[in-house]
Amino acid sequence: MNSSKLCHSPEKIRVPLGFTFSALAAGIKVSGRPDLALIEAPGGAAGAALFTSNLVVAAPVEVGRASLASLAASGGRVRAVIVNSGNANCATGRAGFQACERVCRDAAKILDAAPTQVFPSSTGIIGVPFPDHKIRETLPELIAARSAGERSARAFAHAIMTTDTRPKIASARLKMASKDVTLLGIAKGAGMIHPQLATMLVYLLTDVEAAPGKLQRLLREACDESLNCMSIDGDTSTNDTVLLLASGASGVRLRDAGTAKKFAAALTSVCQSLAEQIISDGEGVQHVIRLHVEEARSREEAMIVARAIAHSLLVKTAWAGADPNWGRILAAVGRSGVLLDPAHVQIFIGSQKVCRNGAGCSFNERQSHRALARAVCDVRVQLGRGRQSVEFLTTDLTAEYVRINADYST
Amino acid sequence: MNSSKLCHSPEKIRVPLGFTFSALAAGIKVSGRPDLALIEAPGGAAGAALFTSNLVVAAPVEVGRASLASLAASGGRVRAVIVNSGNANCATGRAGFQACERVCRDAAKILDAAPTQVFPSSTGIIGVPFPDHKIRETLPELIAARSAGERSARAFAHAIMTTDTRPKIASARLKMASKDVTLLGIAKGAGMIHPQLATMLVYLLTDVEAAPGKLQRLLREACDESLNCMSIDGDTSTNDTVLLLASGASGVRLRDAGTAKKFAAALTSVCQSLAEQIISDGEGVQHVIRLHVEEARSREEAMIVARAIAHSLLVKTAWAGADPNWGRILAAVGRSGVLLDPAHVQIFIGSQKVCRNGAGCSFNERQSHRALARAVCDVRVQLGRGRQSVEFLTTDLTAEYVRINADYST
Repeated sequence: MNSSKLCHSPEKIRVPLGFTFSALAAGIKVSGRPDLALIEAPGGAAGAALFTSNLVVAAPVEVGRASLASLAASGGRVRAVIVNSGNANCATGRAGFQACERVCRDAAKILDAAPTQVFPSSTGIIGVPFPDHKIRETLPELIAARSAGERSARAFAHAIMTTDTRPKIASARLKMASKDVTLLGIAKGAGMIHPQLATMLVYLLTDVEAAPGKLQRLLREACDESLNCMSIDGDTSTNDTVLLLASGASGVRLRDAGTAKKFAAALTSVCQSLAEQIISDGEGVQHVIRLHVEEARSREEAMIVARAIAHSLLVKTAWAGADPNWGRILAAVGRSGVLLDPAHVQIFIGSQKVCRNGAGCSFNERQSHRALARAVCDVRVQLGRGRQSVEFLTTDLTAEYVRINADYST
Repeated sequence: MNSSKLCHSPEKIRVPLGFTFSALAAGIKVSGRPDLALIEAPGGAAGAALFTSNLVVAAPVEVGRASLASLAASGGRVRAVIVNSGNANCATGRAGFQACERVCRDAAKILDAAPTQVFPSSTGIIGVPFPDHKIRETLPELIAARSAGERSARAFAHAIMTTDTRPKIASARLKMASKDVTLLGIAKGAGMIHPQLATMLVYLLTDVEAAPGKLQRLLREACDESLNCMSIDGDTSTNDTVLLLASGASGVRLRDAGTAKKFAAALTSVCQSLAEQIISDGEGVQHVIRLHVEEARSREEAMIVARAIAHSLLVKTAWAGADPNWGRILAAVGRSGVLLDPAHVQIFIGSQKVCRNGAGCSFNERQSHRALARAVCDVRVQLGRGRQSVEFLTTDLTAEYVRINADYST
């Protein structure tokens, strides 16, 4: 990744063959903005998914997981994805589960598919009864309006937003076996971002042909290097879902190790771009920190230290003030749980070393302050224990974050 | 503990026999406020202490720990405690360690004691060279000014403050063997509060007579029920110290199980009062939450869930807005790491049930909002797994907290 700039949603996006999109307002959001969205694969698509590690899971996560398992067993393919924003359909009990099933059933009927071929997603407030009647009333119009192409893909990306201020889209095109293979990723998320297995809602579409098992492995690896390496607030959502759909419409099949590797690199790069877009649109975020934890004994150890730093309120608030207070970073490292020797720890802010062997060293404070005042700053922590490292994206914590999340209007 | 009110520093405090106090400004704080304080035990005191679990520890923690071990081995007694605020003497390397030793040596010389009999503490910024010359120049005057009684004990409590807005003092007097035994606790702390073994700086003084080993056990048990059950921001300090000194000047010896039990109850109650005072003076705190996690399989399990809730930014910011958003609490429970069944979870805000069996239930939202808007509110989470519970004190997270900690002035 480029260290001075983060990816933003590109002006030109590539849409893979074999998918159509649609978006409408079903009246779930009080604002009246679009809140219901569809991805359809007319010829079906092989699917793989990762879900939240939170034990409290939303109804659509339960339904979607079961549907994919059922399709895997029967060799069936995903026909559609129905996403609503404005209501998470979580902690809604049996009623919420049944409401989700009704939405899938109605959509399946219109599309002449099986209910398990319709994959549901929801995002929004937790614990409010799910207004499935609004969705079911809007489904015929939503499905009738579907179309292929960039414009409808962008409308989909807008309709799944909640506190996001902008849509998150990334795409890639690669030549494989002299044919074009396209990869499109669309995500939403700005708070409750601390994925353990996946992050909020991410849809990855491709026209390559591949078996679900292979897609699952590729998806896991790509997420481990991207969406699993970020945190805005340390809160793992109950609805986190990453779905990868492969229509096969390009005519290219992931056959040998070479093509799989090429495709995996593109998939990882699309996921990394989406992670950067999510982080930089984090609630109240002024500064994004690209945290490098290096010289760990294992990647897991590096992750533990990265999370301790990324979740420290004192570190995050210092970053909000562009304060090169490395002592708070060192204190977070010290309480991370990794049994390290603080005397072997080095800390860099931007390009400057600010802590040598666990103690302060002479550095240009004004220069560190300026580095932290930029939109993106690198912070590097070396543990002096081994050769493993992790690059973790995180953010400052601003008064604006508190305002957004403390704003209570009965 | 009383559920509608928290302890504040009492108007009348009791000071145990056998201790004198002193406080002065040594010029460490830029404000010119008192920043150097002394407790002296003219006849010495048996000592026990708990220190931070952070692997990054300040020089005075290293020195103080070694001194207590040396006294324990030689049967020696603590003669004095020297505390400075304004500089934590942490991450200051070998130079900081030696500076701390020089302070103890100079104080010992004036008091005609051994350096190991002087227990050092520091609190303030991390990583700034320790100005021991300022302290050593002020020591003769500080020690000469020492006196017994309430007024000088209060001056001590003021001088150890950093971002605290008020001193934290609690005391108890109990009759044992027809004699008076007095217990006085003085604490400081308003941020970086998430003790794992101890909390910021807490000094517990008593005139009972007891061996260091017995004091250590009593201290551990009292802290487990009080100072270890609270968190403001989840950041464990590098300087956390709880010191218990027993002068023996009351003439009462902790002999049998009965007197030890009576004393232990008073010690726990003083520690609980200090914990409440620390929490309610937390940086930017508007609402204190008394979090009850019940029906856990073990106390440890209850603590894991309590910490997950108490450290969730989304939960804490909802509390700042007095928002009865129980879905965020449930989501924090779900990602805590305890393998529980969300369908058995009940949540209460104030006296009202707001979540039944992991799903929303009908409740008076206005009433819950009013309960959370009070200075102290009870939140109860029942896991439906067993009989263990914990009462954990925590706070909301306000924009003011962010301002305090993001305020950077080069």
